[in-house]
Amino acid sequence: MAWETARMKNKARRNEFDRIARYFAPLAASFPGAFGLKDDAAVISPRAGAEFVVTTDTIVAGVHYIGDEPPSLVAAKLLRVNLSDLAAMGARPRAYTLNIALPKSIDDTWLEAFAAGLGADQEAFGITLIGGDSVSTPGPAVFTLTAFGEVDQGMAVRRAGARAGDLIFVSGTIGDGAVGLRVLQKQIEGLNASDSAFLIDRYRSPQPRSALGCRLPRLAHAAADVSDGLVADLGNIALASGVQATIRAMKVPLSGAVRYAVDSLPALLETVLTGGDDYELVFCAAESDGPAIEALSREIGLPITEIGKIEAGDGVRVLDDDGVSIILSRPGFSHE
Amino acid sequence: MAWETARMKNKARRNEFDRIARYFAPLAASFPGAFGLKDDAAVISPRAGAEFVVTTDTIVAGVHYIGDEPPSLVAAKLLRVNLSDLAAMGARPRAYTLNIALPKSIDDTWLEAFAAGLGADQEAFGITLIGGDSVSTPGPAVFTLTAFGEVDQGMAVRRAGARAGDLIFVSGTIGDGAVGLRVLQKQIEGLNASDSAFLIDRYRSPQPRSALGCRLPRLAHAAADVSDGLVADLGNIALASGVQATIRAMKVPLSGAVRYAVDSLPALLETVLTGGDDYELVFCAAESDGPAIEALSREIGLPITEIGKIEAGDGVRVLDDDGVSIILSRPGFSHE
Repeated sequence: MAWETARMKNKARRNEFDRIARYFAPLAASFPGAFGLKDDAAVISPRAGAEFVVTTDTIVAGVHYIGDEPPSLVAAKLLRVNLSDLAAMGARPRAYTLNIALPKSIDDTWLEAFAAGLGADQEAFGITLIGGDSVSTPGPAVFTLTAFGEVDQGMAVRRAGARAGDLIFVSGTIGDGAVGLRVLQKQIEGLNASDSAFLIDRYRSPQPRSALGCRLPRLAHAAADVSDGLVADLGNIALASGVQATIRAMKVPLSGAVRYAVDSLPALLETVLTGGDDYELVFCAAESDGPAIEALSREIGLPITEIGKIEAGDGVRVLDDDGVSIILSRPGFSHE
Repeated sequence: MAWETARMKNKARRNEFDRIARYFAPLAASFPGAFGLKDDAAVISPRAGAEFVVTTDTIVAGVHYIGDEPPSLVAAKLLRVNLSDLAAMGARPRAYTLNIALPKSIDDTWLEAFAAGLGADQEAFGITLIGGDSVSTPGPAVFTLTAFGEVDQGMAVRRAGARAGDLIFVSGTIGDGAVGLRVLQKQIEGLNASDSAFLIDRYRSPQPRSALGCRLPRLAHAAADVSDGLVADLGNIALASGVQATIRAMKVPLSGAVRYAVDSLPALLETVLTGGDDYELVFCAAESDGPAIEALSREIGLPITEIGKIEAGDGVRVLDDDGVSIILSRPGFSHE
């Protein structure tokens, strides 16, 4: 679809078409409105009574991933961070477009594995490729993925909407991603092999909480995904909602591996609270919905933990066991 | 929305947020579902009875544009090639997302002019920014734009659908873009200043035929935009429709500037027919709709010219004044 200089046009475009036909058209085969990726555009319609939630991310080789990861992991992470944004809005995954700018160093073997990673996640999360673009670049690989989810009209869950008296909940465990990155960077040692592998996997293969997300519209007043760090993402909710969020550090759910790491090196607690890359959901709901949330947690097999409450005021307070504010040296970029 | 390595995370993310707030949030201000670009995602719904047409393009500095163009031109061309795809499908522009990967060499002055270019085209084409992502890259700038248009349900105009007996029509004039690029590259000389400026402008500032596009659903059996070259794009229609397209070279509408250039250098005719970058629409319609198309042309103030007809068979034939096939050395990448 893109324009090219005339000189390189034909060769580059044929190469683009070949790659799209070989690796990407099969990912779009089940979606009629994708027209086999052969038309000028795709056609997509939300189901009756629903609207679309649209989110998009760009990643650059060497900046957002190291470059030597298995291609299927790069594909899965790109797709999953977008699915996490959809979940935070309460949307059910539906379709996505993919734009790739590739250097010559990326060969067909790499691309085949990348597409296979997308294919596996399409099955897992019920989402389908519907369009995209493929171009060449003299620079590092750049990938853009734009995801479309569906939510009942007017029911998207926003950051704004938290009310004084709400309880604050998080899914899963917090800090695995940030500690996993530090394990990968060999900044943390002394963990056993299984804990290390678990944490690295949590960093590399986020689990978007889609099953929880599409249940949020009837329960949550406000939500965000924990991508920039629990304190920062909760801070965004507080800011957008015009309220104060107070959480108890000891209530924040930790995996066994992170618990062990924090016990060995207490300074890591701050990394856990502010480090990001969790892709869990943090949301605010009425205290009276506590039992419904507990039942939902059992139903979808995902721990959901109450970690604090919403009050009048602004910002985020983190309290220690004695109810004293913990001063964070790096609470998050949006609150410094 | 994207993930970053922890080391550069805070600074890069704050920079990203600042730039989004300063240059891009104003472009999204009029769209409630964009939430000021401050939430995890945007919410968008087609109007009742309509569905979305989605198209996307990626451009790389130094590959798809030279790099020294005014930033507003880069922005306009990126947006307009997507609008041209929407027009080809019969869709009315509605909204777009924008992803930018920027090297340090792109400063705020550049970005401000880029955003101003988008703003001007938003006004001109009735489209609004609703989301995006901004990241840094050690490589050349990479831009991805994904555009959403609306079409009545089931009425999108595809490449497939042309029928034997249909007439073939094109909007505007053909070849200006391809000849304009060659003027810019100093491959063609001897034109007067005003013709040169006209052709370069046609190359740099395509005019998406949105007013024509959104009228196509009731008239055209098949359509494409002329981005890869008239013969190639018409060839895509023929291939998708399972028919043969025959056009008369002498009927193809040329601007005065291209007419002069071809008269001086007859070999340029092939560039005109195969060169691309026109962003006009080529479409097939019943002969009986000829008067309606003529009336539409007058109504929207855009020349629409009949250039040939659809018959049983396959491929594209270009006939000269005597009805003899012209053999093109480079008919287009998809037909070699």
